[in-house]
Amino acid sequence: MNVPNFSLSTEASYLKRSVMRDLLSLATSPDILSLAGGLPASEYLPLKQYQACLNQVLNRGSRCMQYSPQYAPLREWIAAYMRSRGVDCDVRNIFITNGAQQGLTILSRLLLDPGQPVVIEAATFTGIQQVTAGRGADVRTVPTNLETGVDLDSLEAAFKRNPRPRFAVIIPDFHNPLGVSLSAEKRHVIADLASKYGVPIIEDDPYSALRFEGDKLPPIKAYDEAGYVFYLGSFSKMLAPSVRLGWIVAPDELIPKITVFRESIDLESSILTQQAVYEFVSQGFLDDHLICFNAVNQQRRDALLSALEEHLGGIATWTHPQGGLFVWVTLPEGMDTWAMFEKAIEKKVIYIPGAAFTIDATCRNAMRLNFSNLRPDLIDEAVSRLADVIHMQQAVSV
Amino acid sequence: MNVPNFSLSTEASYLKRSVMRDLLSLATSPDILSLAGGLPASEYLPLKQYQACLNQVLNRGSRCMQYSPQYAPLREWIAAYMRSRGVDCDVRNIFITNGAQQGLTILSRLLLDPGQPVVIEAATFTGIQQVTAGRGADVRTVPTNLETGVDLDSLEAAFKRNPRPRFAVIIPDFHNPLGVSLSAEKRHVIADLASKYGVPIIEDDPYSALRFEGDKLPPIKAYDEAGYVFYLGSFSKMLAPSVRLGWIVAPDELIPKITVFRESIDLESSILTQQAVYEFVSQGFLDDHLICFNAVNQQRRDALLSALEEHLGGIATWTHPQGGLFVWVTLPEGMDTWAMFEKAIEKKVIYIPGAAFTIDATCRNAMRLNFSNLRPDLIDEAVSRLADVIHMQQAVSV
Repeated sequence: MNVPNFSLSTEASYLKRSVMRDLLSLATSPDILSLAGGLPASEYLPLKQYQACLNQVLNRGSRCMQYSPQYAPLREWIAAYMRSRGVDCDVRNIFITNGAQQGLTILSRLLLDPGQPVVIEAATFTGIQQVTAGRGADVRTVPTNLETGVDLDSLEAAFKRNPRPRFAVIIPDFHNPLGVSLSAEKRHVIADLASKYGVPIIEDDPYSALRFEGDKLPPIKAYDEAGYVFYLGSFSKMLAPSVRLGWIVAPDELIPKITVFRESIDLESSILTQQAVYEFVSQGFLDDHLICFNAVNQQRRDALLSALEEHLGGIATWTHPQGGLFVWVTLPEGMDTWAMFEKAIEKKVIYIPGAAFTIDATCRNAMRLNFSNLRPDLIDEAVSRLADVIHMQQAVSV
Repeated sequence: MNVPNFSLSTEASYLKRSVMRDLLSLATSPDILSLAGGLPASEYLPLKQYQACLNQVLNRGSRCMQYSPQYAPLREWIAAYMRSRGVDCDVRNIFITNGAQQGLTILSRLLLDPGQPVVIEAATFTGIQQVTAGRGADVRTVPTNLETGVDLDSLEAAFKRNPRPRFAVIIPDFHNPLGVSLSAEKRHVIADLASKYGVPIIEDDPYSALRFEGDKLPPIKAYDEAGYVFYLGSFSKMLAPSVRLGWIVAPDELIPKITVFRESIDLESSILTQQAVYEFVSQGFLDDHLICFNAVNQQRRDALLSALEEHLGGIATWTHPQGGLFVWVTLPEGMDTWAMFEKAIEKKVIYIPGAAFTIDATCRNAMRLNFSNLRPDLIDEAVSRLADVIHMQQAVSV
């Protein structure tokens, strides 16, 4: 097929191809152990239960194959779920999306013109970078403490600056990539800062249901009396990625505008999937699944922390997540996890270099490790290989 | 939930809530007969076959519930399908989307900055309006002849004007809302105009597989030697809306940029659905389904044309589609299908007023009628009710 010579949009120039993706595409050997992805444990996804729910819906007839408005019973269930977490909302506040990423897209388009200021965490999920820096926003970054989460003084300073930011994106639980969670007190302060400075918060929360340790905490949205917090939820991690469903909690006055944005993007979410997910959650399969799933994740987190202690104790430091999928490992200053990535591929282990989670290629001495998608014995082997790479790199630098 | 007072983006001001949607929401009575929607025949959707395919995939294990790259066998099948229609392409040119609307979103963002000129047909699908006028484009409209499709002289004039348009969107087969199709000769000319003036064409083709009469025609893309035509396909009408899958055919050099745009919007399409749709198409269920489905559609189109002749002959004129879902009815000059809509609801029949398909509220004496989602006897009853409304309106105007 010929390549024409027309030019692309300004937006096309903002949005960069992921260099990390190119690196990962080199990692094709089947004997590579991956600590890189953000995949939940494949072998513990609730296949049989979800299949049963899909068949229940399909057995009712072909309406589930048609175009359809959002499925009200699922929206009702989500509203009740959010209320059980302390959020004052009802069905009118719930809008179903294709995962939390689509929520980020819709809200960023609703709130942000290119060139306007926004606030994101200095190390954050690449999908959050895409809807801010990737749309030509003037990005203000705030540091995130590895034990307590986003730094409140920096956040307030970023909110205070004129022009005021259009919004801030914050991950409350089991931060991607850092693994850290915010205390209830910090959540309360963040909601107050939002209303004090009139800066909307987009609370990106795909992970909170994956808590296996410590007390459950209300989302930032639970402290939001003034209506400045948009909450994004997702079934991708708590049920399965391929259902491609998530939700926005927003003021009901904004739902019509959100609806027309969504329609312009891709019309709607599959009614078959919405109905099957509703059967799954309303018949109690979700609760059963999370008990099993989080036990598996906890065992794997333990395996990763033990392996780090054994193979990298005294060299590296790391976060201690109480749930989610990720541990953040910091190597001595001067080491470069991006530079050592090809060596890691040779040693048959992969991870994500810290710099991939920043828009200015900092955090070069850090890396994100996933613990959810490898068996505990393979996690140990993977970290052992990783330690070999790091030791070699250290020997070179000395 | 409180409503905060932050302002929205410029884009949010472009994208208008559909007034038509508000009107349709009045039509809640169960005894209303709808000629309004664009729904394929619910009772003939291939439920059992698709269910069997879903279960085949699910029975292979939980990989189908995970994150995944696009499913290569489905992309291969689509490439072969496009080659069978005369398009020179292979798997590298195929990108899977959540329906053709997402293809419109991705391509419009790839090619268009707000304020830049684009070309669309004067009466066209509302989703095409959303990604052009709804993004603040400088929209140039070209008329579409009700027997031969888009007017080529007007198209060339719009292409010639400086600054050159960023792209033009054209529906080749069974136009929504007009029902008309382009001849092979016109398709060839359009591809040549695109390359002559360097204007990309977005060919939006959700309907071509729904042909029940006349010869199949190659898409505009088949005549595109210079690479200026982007083709958008969809499984929504040929298989079922709730699979939410479609595809883009594009130069392979642009696929990485399309991929990163797609990731930023909603990451990916469900691998479970992609695999199930692949089983459906590759096991021959699609061909069987279309034989049955198009026979049903033809019977319903015939019923609509007969009913129009019986109840509105001599008053109205209408198009004679050889496939698809829609007939376009033109009433005498001066009549107003928007104004008579509430009267139609009272008479328990609904349609879409022509003005809804224009960005300047013209075509006020026209309406779009769907024939695919009502039984033939109900189509006759619906048109009879519609004729009553029109006769009343005529009496008022006289």
